[in-house]
Amino acid sequence: MPALTLTYFDFDGGRGEPARLALHIGGVPFEDRRVLFKEWQAMRDGMPFRALPVLEVDGRLVAQSNSINRYVGKLAGLYPQDNLQALLCDEVMDAVEDMDFQIGSTIGLDAEAKKKAREALTAGPLPHYLEQFQARLEAAGGEYFADRRLTVGDLKVWMLVRWLRSGMLDDIPKDLVDRVAPRLVTHAERLAAQPQIAAYYAGRKKA
Amino acid sequence: MPALTLTYFDFDGGRGEPARLALHIGGVPFEDRRVLFKEWQAMRDGMPFRALPVLEVDGRLVAQSNSINRYVGKLAGLYPQDNLQALLCDEVMDAVEDMDFQIGSTIGLDAEAKKKAREALTAGPLPHYLEQFQARLEAAGGEYFADRRLTVGDLKVWMLVRWLRSGMLDDIPKDLVDRVAPRLVTHAERLAAQPQIAAYYAGRKKA
Repeated sequence: MPALTLTYFDFDGGRGEPARLALHIGGVPFEDRRVLFKEWQAMRDGMPFRALPVLEVDGRLVAQSNSINRYVGKLAGLYPQDNLQALLCDEVMDAVEDMDFQIGSTIGLDAEAKKKAREALTAGPLPHYLEQFQARLEAAGGEYFADRRLTVGDLKVWMLVRWLRSGMLDDIPKDLVDRVAPRLVTHAERLAAQPQIAAYYAGRKKA
Repeated sequence: MPALTLTYFDFDGGRGEPARLALHIGGVPFEDRRVLFKEWQAMRDGMPFRALPVLEVDGRLVAQSNSINRYVGKLAGLYPQDNLQALLCDEVMDAVEDMDFQIGSTIGLDAEAKKKAREALTAGPLPHYLEQFQARLEAAGGEYFADRRLTVGDLKVWMLVRWLRSGMLDDIPKDLVDRVAPRLVTHAERLAAQPQIAAYYAGRKKA
Protein backbone atom coordinates (compact mmCIF):
# COMPACT_ATOMS: atom_id res chain seq x y z
CA MET A 1 0.00 0.00 0.00
CA PRO A 2 1.23 3.54 -0.72
CA ALA A 3 1.71 5.98 2.16
CA LEU A 4 -1.47 8.08 2.23
CA THR A 5 -2.37 11.38 3.91
CA LEU A 6 -5.86 12.70 3.34
CA THR A 7 -6.30 16.38 4.19
CA TYR A 8 -9.78 17.80 4.66
CA PHE A 9 -11.83 19.95 7.00
CA ASP A 10 -12.66 18.68 10.47
CA PHE A 11 -16.31 17.79 10.10
CA ASP A 12 -18.22 14.64 9.17
CA GLY A 13 -19.42 15.51 5.68
CA GLY A 14 -18.64 17.35 2.47
CA ARG A 15 -16.33 16.53 -0.40
CA GLY A 16 -13.67 14.79 1.70
CA GLU A 17 -15.87 12.50 3.76
CA PRO A 18 -16.52 9.76 1.14
CA ALA A 19 -12.77 9.10 0.82
CA ARG A 20 -12.26 9.15 4.60
CA LEU A 21 -15.14 6.72 5.04
CA ALA A 22 -13.94 4.46 2.21
CA LEU A 23 -10.46 4.20 3.71
CA HIS A 24 -11.93 3.33 7.12
CA ILE A 25 -14.36 0.78 5.69
CA GLY A 26 -11.61 -0.85 3.63
CA GLY A 27 -9.16 -0.89 6.53
CA VAL A 28 -6.61 1.03 4.46
CA PRO A 29 -4.01 2.75 6.69
CA PHE A 30 -3.84 6.53 6.17
CA GLU A 31 -3.09 9.72 8.02
CA ASP A 32 -6.35 11.58 8.62
CA ARG A 33 -5.23 15.19 8.60
CA ARG A 34 -8.08 17.47 9.71
CA VAL A 35 -7.90 21.20 9.01
CA LEU A 36 -9.71 23.74 11.17
CA PHE A 37 -11.61 26.44 9.28
CA LYS A 38 -9.49 29.11 10.98
CA GLU A 39 -6.35 27.47 9.52
CA TRP A 40 -7.66 27.38 5.97
CA GLN A 41 -7.03 30.94 4.76
CA ALA A 42 -3.30 30.64 5.48
CA MET A 43 -3.11 27.26 3.69
CA ARG A 44 -5.33 27.98 0.73
CA ASP A 45 -2.82 29.39 -1.76
CA GLY A 46 -0.47 26.46 -1.15
CA MET A 47 -3.09 23.90 -2.14
CA PRO A 48 -3.47 22.77 -5.75
CA PHE A 49 -6.61 24.40 -7.22
CA ARG A 50 -6.96 26.16 -3.83
CA ALA A 51 -9.34 23.55 -2.47
CA LEU A 52 -9.67 20.53 -0.20
CA PRO A 53 -9.63 17.54 -0.04
CA VAL A 54 -6.12 16.71 -1.20
CA LEU A 55 -4.48 13.31 -1.01
CA GLU A 56 -0.76 12.75 -0.61
CA VAL A 57 0.32 9.48 -2.21
CA ASP A 58 3.91 8.57 -1.35
CA GLY A 59 4.66 12.30 -1.08
CA ARG A 60 2.82 13.34 -4.25
CA LEU A 61 -0.04 15.79 -3.69
CA VAL A 62 -3.20 15.16 -5.73
CA ALA A 63 -6.48 17.09 -5.70
CA GLN A 64 -10.07 16.74 -6.92
CA SER A 65 -12.51 14.93 -4.67
CA ASN A 66 -14.01 12.44 -7.11
CA SER A 67 -10.57 11.53 -8.48
CA ILE A 68 -9.52 10.84 -4.90
CA ASN A 69 -12.73 8.89 -4.18
CA ARG A 70 -12.08 6.67 -7.19
CA TYR A 71 -8.44 6.04 -6.28
CA VAL A 72 -9.09 5.20 -2.64
CA GLY A 73 -12.19 3.28 -3.68
CA LYS A 74 -9.91 0.96 -5.67
CA LEU A 75 -7.58 0.52 -2.68
CA ALA A 76 -10.52 -0.09 -0.34
CA GLY A 77 -12.37 -2.54 -2.59
CA LEU A 78 -15.23 -0.06 -3.01
CA TYR A 79 -14.99 0.61 -6.74
CA PRO A 80 -16.34 -1.64 -9.53
CA GLN A 81 -13.89 -3.52 -11.72
CA ASP A 82 -16.42 -3.94 -14.52
CA ASN A 83 -16.28 -1.03 -16.99
CA LEU A 84 -20.02 -0.40 -17.20
CA GLN A 85 -20.52 -0.63 -13.43
CA ALA A 86 -17.58 1.76 -12.96
CA LEU A 87 -19.29 4.14 -15.38
CA LEU A 88 -22.52 4.05 -13.35
CA CYS A 89 -20.56 4.67 -10.13
CA ASP A 90 -18.71 7.59 -11.76
CA GLU A 91 -21.87 9.10 -13.22
CA VAL A 92 -23.55 9.59 -9.85
CA MET A 93 -20.34 10.90 -8.27
CA ASP A 94 -20.00 13.52 -11.01
CA ALA A 95 -23.68 14.43 -10.80
CA VAL A 96 -23.43 14.97 -7.03
CA GLU A 97 -20.46 17.22 -7.72
CA ASP A 98 -22.70 19.31 -10.04
CA MET A 99 -25.14 19.81 -7.18
CA ASP A 100 -22.39 20.43 -4.60
CA PHE A 101 -21.07 23.16 -6.88
CA GLN A 102 -24.48 24.75 -7.43
CA ILE A 103 -25.41 24.70 -3.75
CA GLY A 104 -21.87 25.74 -2.78
CA SER A 105 -22.02 28.79 -5.04
CA THR A 106 -24.96 30.13 -2.97
CA ILE A 107 -23.12 29.97 0.36
CA GLY A 108 -21.26 33.29 0.04
CA LEU A 109 -24.27 35.29 -1.16
CA ASP A 110 -26.06 37.87 0.98
CA ALA A 111 -29.32 36.73 2.57
CA GLU A 112 -31.69 37.97 -0.14
CA ALA A 113 -29.65 36.70 -3.09
CA LYS A 114 -29.09 33.40 -1.29
CA LYS A 115 -32.80 32.92 -0.73
CA LYS A 116 -33.55 33.67 -4.38
CA ALA A 117 -30.81 31.33 -5.65
CA ARG A 118 -31.83 28.50 -3.35
CA GLU A 119 -35.50 28.83 -4.20
CA ALA A 120 -34.54 28.54 -7.87
CA LEU A 121 -32.49 25.42 -7.09
CA THR A 122 -35.39 23.95 -5.10
CA ALA A 123 -37.82 24.68 -7.93
CA GLY A 124 -35.77 23.08 -10.68
CA PRO A 125 -32.33 21.48 -10.64
CA LEU A 126 -32.44 19.89 -7.17
CA PRO A 127 -35.62 17.82 -7.58
CA HIS A 128 -34.55 16.91 -11.11
CA TYR A 129 -31.22 15.57 -9.87
CA LEU A 130 -32.83 13.78 -6.92
CA GLU A 131 -35.35 12.09 -9.24
CA GLN A 132 -32.52 11.06 -11.55
CA PHE A 133 -30.57 9.60 -8.64
CA GLN A 134 -33.62 7.66 -7.48
CA ALA A 135 -34.27 6.33 -11.00
CA ARG A 136 -30.63 5.20 -11.25
CA LEU A 137 -30.79 3.51 -7.87
CA GLU A 138 -33.89 1.60 -8.96
CA ALA A 139 -32.39 0.67 -12.33
CA ALA A 140 -29.32 -0.69 -10.51
CA GLY A 141 -31.42 -3.02 -8.35
CA GLY A 142 -32.67 -0.60 -5.68
CA GLU A 143 -30.04 -1.08 -2.98
CA TYR A 144 -26.80 0.40 -4.34
CA PHE A 145 -25.90 2.61 -7.29
CA ALA A 146 -23.53 0.19 -9.02
CA ASP A 147 -22.25 -3.37 -8.87
CA ARG A 148 -25.08 -4.42 -6.45
CA ARG A 149 -22.81 -3.61 -3.51
CA LEU A 150 -21.44 -0.63 -1.60
CA THR A 151 -19.15 1.62 -3.68
CA VAL A 152 -17.79 5.14 -3.34
CA GLY A 153 -20.72 6.23 -5.53
CA ASP A 154 -23.10 5.36 -2.68
CA LEU A 155 -20.98 7.27 -0.17
CA LYS A 156 -20.94 10.36 -2.40
CA VAL A 157 -24.73 10.42 -2.92
CA TRP A 158 -25.29 9.81 0.78
CA MET A 159 -23.25 12.90 1.73
CA LEU A 160 -25.48 15.06 -0.49
CA VAL A 161 -28.66 13.53 0.90
CA ARG A 162 -27.43 13.93 4.48
CA TRP A 163 -26.56 17.58 3.83
CA LEU A 164 -29.93 18.35 2.25
CA ARG A 165 -31.80 16.67 5.14
CA SER A 166 -29.66 18.19 7.90
CA GLY A 167 -31.50 21.48 8.16
CA MET A 168 -28.18 23.31 7.76
CA LEU A 169 -29.19 24.78 4.40
CA ASP A 170 -31.51 27.76 4.88
CA ASP A 171 -34.12 28.19 2.14
CA ILE A 172 -33.89 24.58 0.96
CA PRO A 173 -36.70 22.57 2.60
CA LYS A 174 -35.13 19.83 4.68
CA ASP A 175 -37.88 17.41 3.65
CA LEU A 176 -37.20 17.88 -0.07
CA VAL A 177 -35.45 14.52 -0.49
CA ASP A 178 -38.15 12.72 1.50
CA ARG A 179 -40.85 14.19 -0.73
CA VAL A 180 -39.12 13.92 -4.11
CA ALA A 181 -36.97 10.81 -3.85
CA PRO A 182 -37.87 8.74 -0.76
CA ARG A 183 -35.79 5.77 -1.93
CA LEU A 184 -32.70 7.93 -1.39
CA VAL A 185 -33.71 8.21 2.26
CA THR A 186 -33.96 4.41 2.51
CA HIS A 187 -30.57 4.23 0.80
CA ALA A 188 -29.11 6.67 3.33
CA GLU A 189 -30.51 4.59 6.18
CA ARG A 190 -29.10 1.43 4.61
CA LEU A 191 -25.62 2.99 4.53
CA ALA A 192 -25.81 4.42 8.06
CA ALA A 193 -26.69 0.93 9.33
CA GLN A 194 -23.71 -0.81 7.68
CA PRO A 195 -21.72 -2.21 10.63
CA GLN A 196 -18.40 -0.57 9.69
CA ILE A 197 -20.03 2.80 9.03
CA ALA A 198 -22.13 2.66 12.20
CA ALA A 199 -19.05 1.73 14.24
CA TYR A 200 -17.02 4.55 12.66
CA TYR A 201 -19.56 7.24 13.53
CA ALA A 202 -20.14 5.79 17.00
CA GLY A 203 -16.38 6.17 17.53
CA ARG A 204 -16.46 9.74 16.22
CA LYS A 205 -19.17 10.67 18.72
CA LYS A 206 -17.09 9.42 21.61
CA ALA A 207 -13.96 11.26 20.42
CA MET B 1 -17.73 -4.18 -27.86
CA PRO B 2 -21.00 -2.71 -26.61
CA ALA B 3 -23.26 -0.79 -29.02
CA LEU B 4 -22.43 2.89 -28.44
CA THR B 5 -24.20 6.10 -29.41
CA LEU B 6 -22.57 9.35 -28.33
CA THR B 7 -24.87 12.37 -28.46
CA TYR B 8 -23.40 15.86 -28.40
CA PHE B 9 -23.59 19.20 -30.14
CA ASP B 10 -22.38 19.53 -33.71
CA PHE B 11 -19.11 21.38 -33.23
CA ASP B 12 -15.49 20.33 -32.76
CA GLY B 13 -14.96 21.12 -29.09
CA GLY B 14 -16.56 21.26 -25.68
CA ARG B 15 -17.43 18.57 -23.18
CA GLY B 16 -18.31 15.91 -25.76
CA GLU B 17 -15.29 16.21 -28.03
CA PRO B 18 -12.72 14.26 -25.92
CA ALA B 19 -14.94 11.14 -26.01
CA ARG B 20 -15.62 11.54 -29.75
CA LEU B 21 -11.91 11.92 -30.42
CA ALA B 22 -10.98 8.99 -28.15
CA LEU B 23 -13.42 6.68 -29.93
CA HIS B 24 -12.02 7.73 -33.33
CA ILE B 25 -8.39 7.36 -32.21
CA GLY B 26 -9.08 3.93 -30.71
CA GLY B 27 -11.01 2.74 -33.74
CA VAL B 28 -14.03 1.95 -31.55
CA PRO B 29 -17.25 1.76 -33.61
CA PHE B 30 -19.95 4.16 -32.43
CA GLU B 31 -22.84 6.21 -33.69
CA ASP B 32 -21.83 9.88 -33.69
CA ARG B 33 -25.13 11.63 -33.07
CA ARG B 34 -24.77 15.37 -33.53
CA VAL B 35 -27.43 17.73 -32.18
CA LEU B 36 -28.06 21.15 -33.68
CA PHE B 37 -28.41 23.99 -31.18
CA LYS B 38 -31.91 24.69 -32.53
CA GLU B 39 -32.92 21.11 -31.65
CA TRP B 40 -31.65 21.30 -28.09
CA GLN B 41 -34.49 23.10 -26.28
CA ALA B 42 -37.00 20.44 -27.34
CA MET B 43 -34.65 17.63 -26.22
CA ARG B 44 -33.35 19.11 -23.01
CA ASP B 45 -35.93 17.90 -20.50
CA GLY B 46 -35.62 14.35 -21.82
CA MET B 47 -31.91 14.19 -21.11
CA PRO B 48 -30.56 12.99 -17.75
CA PHE B 49 -29.33 16.03 -15.78
CA ARG B 50 -30.57 18.16 -18.75
CA ALA B 51 -27.15 18.23 -20.38
CA LEU B 52 -25.00 16.76 -23.15
CA PRO B 53 -22.97 14.68 -23.86
CA VAL B 54 -24.82 11.47 -23.14
CA LEU B 55 -23.66 8.00 -24.08
CA GLU B 56 -25.96 5.11 -24.87
CA VAL B 57 -24.35 1.79 -23.97
CA ASP B 58 -26.37 -1.18 -25.26
CA GLY B 59 -29.51 0.93 -24.90
CA ARG B 60 -28.69 2.37 -21.46
CA LEU B 61 -28.36 6.16 -21.33
CA VAL B 62 -25.51 7.52 -19.20
CA ALA B 63 -24.48 11.16 -18.64
CA GLN B 64 -21.56 13.18 -17.22
CA SER B 65 -18.74 14.02 -19.58
CA ASN B 66 -15.76 12.85 -17.54
CA SER B 67 -17.48 9.60 -16.62
CA ILE B 68 -18.04 9.05 -20.34
CA ASN B 69 -14.45 10.05 -21.16
CA ARG B 70 -13.13 7.49 -18.67
CA TYR B 71 -15.37 4.69 -19.96
CA VAL B 72 -14.61 5.25 -23.65
CA GLY B 73 -10.96 5.86 -22.73
CA LYS B 74 -10.84 2.29 -21.40
CA LEU B 75 -12.45 0.93 -24.58
CA ALA B 76 -10.10 2.97 -26.77
CA GLY B 77 -6.88 2.13 -24.88
CA LEU B 78 -6.52 5.76 -23.79
CA TYR B 79 -6.88 5.37 -20.02
CA PRO B 80 -4.14 4.23 -17.60
CA GLN B 81 -4.42 0.80 -15.99
CA ASP B 82 -2.10 1.75 -13.12
CA ASN B 83 -4.05 3.22 -10.17
CA LEU B 84 -1.79 6.22 -9.57
CA GLN B 85 -1.55 7.10 -13.27
CA ALA B 86 -5.34 6.81 -13.52
CA LEU B 87 -5.60 9.22 -10.57
CA LEU B 88 -3.36 11.76 -12.33
CA CYS B 89 -5.44 11.43 -15.52
CA ASP B 90 -8.67 11.87 -13.53
CA GLU B 91 -7.34 14.85 -11.57
CA VAL B 92 -6.73 16.98 -14.67
CA MET B 93 -10.05 15.96 -16.21
CA ASP B 94 -11.92 17.05 -13.07
CA ALA B 95 -9.92 20.28 -12.83
CA VAL B 96 -10.76 21.17 -16.44
CA GLU B 97 -14.40 20.56 -15.58
CA ASP B 98 -14.07 23.14 -12.74
CA MET B 99 -12.88 25.71 -15.26
CA ASP B 100 -15.47 24.72 -17.89
CA PHE B 101 -18.14 25.27 -15.25
CA GLN B 102 -16.76 28.64 -14.16
CA ILE B 103 -16.33 29.92 -17.71
CA GLY B 104 -19.65 28.38 -18.74
CA SER B 105 -21.48 30.19 -15.95
CA THR B 106 -20.47 33.56 -17.53
CA ILE B 107 -21.94 32.77 -20.95
CA GLY B 108 -25.53 33.73 -20.17
CA LEU B 109 -24.68 37.01 -18.41
CA ASP B 110 -25.35 40.43 -19.89
CA ALA B 111 -22.35 42.20 -21.41
CA GLU B 112 -21.30 44.21 -18.35
CA ALA B 113 -21.66 41.37 -15.84
CA LYS B 114 -19.92 38.98 -18.25
CA LYS B 115 -16.97 41.36 -18.62
CA LYS B 116 -16.67 41.71 -14.86
CA ALA B 117 -16.92 37.96 -14.22
CA ARG B 118 -14.40 37.10 -16.94
CA GLU B 119 -11.93 39.73 -15.77
CA ALA B 120 -12.13 38.19 -12.29
CA LEU B 121 -11.50 34.74 -13.79
CA THR B 122 -8.56 36.08 -15.79
CA ALA B 123 -7.09 37.76 -12.71
CA GLY B 124 -7.26 34.72 -10.45
CA PRO B 125 -8.61 31.22 -11.03
CA LEU B 126 -7.71 30.83 -14.70
CA PRO B 127 -3.95 31.53 -14.46
CA HIS B 128 -3.82 29.49 -11.23
CA TYR B 129 -5.38 26.48 -12.95
CA LEU B 130 -3.21 26.89 -16.05
CA GLU B 131 -0.05 27.02 -13.92
CA GLN B 132 -1.19 23.92 -12.04
CA PHE B 133 -1.80 22.10 -15.31
CA GLN B 134 1.64 23.07 -16.58
CA ALA B 135 3.29 21.93 -13.33
CA ARG B 136 1.49 18.58 -13.57
CA LEU B 137 2.52 18.14 -17.19
CA GLU B 138 6.14 18.76 -16.25
CA ALA B 139 5.98 16.44 -13.22
CA ALA B 140 4.59 13.70 -15.47
CA GLY B 141 7.54 13.95 -17.88
CA GLY B 142 6.55 16.97 -19.96
CA GLU B 143 4.79 15.33 -22.89
CA TYR B 144 1.56 13.85 -21.52
CA PHE B 145 -0.40 14.23 -18.28
CA ALA B 146 -0.29 10.58 -17.22
CA ASP B 147 1.25 7.23 -18.13
CA ARG B 148 3.81 8.92 -20.46
CA ARG B 149 1.40 8.45 -23.36
CA LEU B 150 -1.77 9.93 -24.79
CA THR B 151 -4.82 9.52 -22.53
CA VAL B 152 -8.27 11.10 -22.31
CA GLY B 153 -6.75 13.49 -19.75
CA ASP B 154 -4.66 15.06 -22.52
CA LEU B 155 -7.70 15.39 -24.78
CA LYS B 156 -9.70 17.09 -22.02
CA VAL B 157 -6.99 19.67 -21.21
CA TRP B 158 -6.44 20.30 -24.91
CA MET B 159 -10.11 21.23 -25.42
CA LEU B 160 -9.86 23.87 -22.67
CA VAL B 161 -6.62 25.27 -24.09
CA ARG B 162 -8.03 25.34 -27.62
CA TRP B 163 -11.15 27.17 -26.38
CA LEU B 164 -9.15 29.76 -24.44
CA ARG B 165 -6.86 30.40 -27.42
CA SER B 166 -9.66 30.49 -30.01
CA GLY B 167 -10.63 34.11 -29.55
CA MET B 168 -14.26 33.01 -29.04
CA LEU B 169 -14.30 34.12 -25.40
CA ASP B 170 -14.73 37.88 -25.16
CA ASP B 171 -12.95 39.50 -22.19
CA ILE B 172 -10.53 36.61 -21.71
CA PRO B 173 -7.24 37.47 -23.49
CA LYS B 174 -6.62 34.85 -26.16
CA ASP B 175 -2.89 34.88 -25.40
CA LEU B 176 -3.44 34.05 -21.71
CA VAL B 177 -2.33 30.40 -22.04
CA ASP B 178 0.70 31.39 -24.12
CA ARG B 179 1.79 33.86 -21.46
CA VAL B 180 1.00 31.87 -18.33
CA ALA B 181 1.59 28.26 -19.31
CA PRO B 182 3.43 28.01 -22.66
CA ARG B 183 4.08 24.29 -22.23
CA LEU B 184 0.34 23.74 -22.57
CA VAL B 185 0.60 25.31 -26.03
CA THR B 186 3.38 22.89 -26.95
CA HIS B 187 1.21 20.10 -25.56
CA ALA B 188 -1.73 21.25 -27.70
CA GLU B 189 0.50 21.30 -30.79
CA ARG B 190 1.79 17.82 -29.93
CA LEU B 191 -1.76 16.50 -29.83
CA ALA B 192 -2.89 18.27 -32.99
CA ALA B 193 0.07 16.69 -34.82
CA GLN B 194 -0.76 13.10 -33.77
CA PRO B 195 -1.42 11.30 -37.07
CA GLN B 196 -4.85 9.96 -36.07
CA ILE B 197 -5.98 13.31 -34.70
CA ALA B 198 -4.63 15.27 -37.66
CA ALA B 199 -6.34 12.85 -40.07
CA TYR B 200 -9.61 13.13 -38.16
CA TYR B 201 -9.75 16.92 -38.33
CA ALA B 202 -8.59 16.95 -41.95
CA GLY B 203 -11.58 14.71 -42.68
CA ARG B 204 -13.90 17.02 -40.73
CA LYS B 205 -12.78 20.01 -42.80
CA LYS B 206 -13.61 18.21 -46.03
CA ALA B 207 -17.04 17.12 -44.76
